[in-house]
Amino acid sequence: MIRYPNGKTYQPKQAASSLKKKPSYSNRGMTLEDDLNETNIYYLNHSIAVIHKKPTPVQIVHVDYPKRSAAVIKEAYFKQSSTTDYNGVYKGRYIDFEAKETKSRTSFPLQNFHDHQIEHMKQVVAQGGICFVIISAFGEIYFLEAEKLFYFWERKNQNGRKSIRKDELEEAGHPISLGYSPRIDYIKVIDQLYFSPS
Amino acid sequence: MIRYPNGKTYQPKQAASSLKKKPSYSNRGMTLEDDLNETNIYYLNHSIAVIHKKPTPVQIVHVDYPKRSAAVIKEAYFKQSSTTDYNGVYKGRYIDFEAKETKSRTSFPLQNFHDHQIEHMKQVVAQGGICFVIISAFGEIYFLEAEKLFYFWERKNQNGRKSIRKDELEEAGHPISLGYSPRIDYIKVIDQLYFSPS
Repeated sequence: MIRYPNGKTYQPKQAASSLKKKPSYSNRGMTLEDDLNETNIYYLNHSIAVIHKKPTPVQIVHVDYPKRSAAVIKEAYFKQSSTTDYNGVYKGRYIDFEAKETKSRTSFPLQNFHDHQIEHMKQVVAQGGICFVIISAFGEIYFLEAEKLFYFWERKNQNGRKSIRKDELEEAGHPISLGYSPRIDYIKVIDQLYFSPS
Repeated sequence: MIRYPNGKTYQPKQAASSLKKKPSYSNRGMTLEDDLNETNIYYLNHSIAVIHKKPTPVQIVHVDYPKRSAAVIKEAYFKQSSTTDYNGVYKGRYIDFEAKETKSRTSFPLQNFHDHQIEHMKQVVAQGGICFVIISAFGEIYFLEAEKLFYFWERKNQNGRKSIRKDELEEAGHPISLGYSPRIDYIKVIDQLYFSPS
């Protein structure tokens, strides 16, 4: 075992990708959403950050109000979200992100996003918020800054490829190793990118 | 008409409250939520701030998936929110607030909030977010900083009164005059409280 001077163990970057059985969500019985929710609870309980997943947007059409019991929604439809799924605050700064996974072994399809979400991310970036996506792909978790996603999105809009190639994501994204607690420590990446002394 | 040196007209503070017919939501056909949504759209379209109302949290119990048409939620229930209704970003800072109205003419009942919301607001403040409530009461709109709400909440918890008296809200809150566009310019108060040069 190799240790850095700060006592942390050295984790060779190629270790995970060189394993034959990759840590995918399908064989752990957990979803990316589960892990992010656990992570956010950890951050909340340790006063590190206040980040919540937004409720699923629903168009309510019909509600019954039975006597002496709770109102029952009898007809409703799922609506497309006009924003991202997660937001909150870290050290006073606004945090905003979306989480996506792919089972593809070669590329991350951009159809995972829709125009409204990209538009929202651009507004957040313009307003000085910290905006990114967490992508589970190829047996890794990547932190991809919104500005880099915009590049691939523009390329698609100019009749380029409709996905981010594996090697492009490895180059543009920041890998987050899965931990026990917190499971997906994305705040560590935020610290490095936005709060490290320059 | 009296004008300040900066050209703004002087609005005597007692003007609205001395009117016999107060500008209440019931006789304008608009809700506080409508006005805040319009305000947030204005802020978004003018690149002033990115603030959205969160979707209503719903516990989905049963969904039908008819062939060749959209999924229909057939049974669902309203859930109590564990956070506040509005959040977003202004000049990089995290903004978080709740909006409440009362028809009482003498006080604002604290039962408009529940423990989870107050707990959330405390977490936001501890994390350096800008947190407040917008209260429609006594024919006025008030911006009340979360820290001041906590005072009244603690007083209630120590067997004190269960409401904020009219004169207390006038003293602790910042009045926001209803405008045409934006209708409830709460960013102006945020500028004064958090961004004015000291």
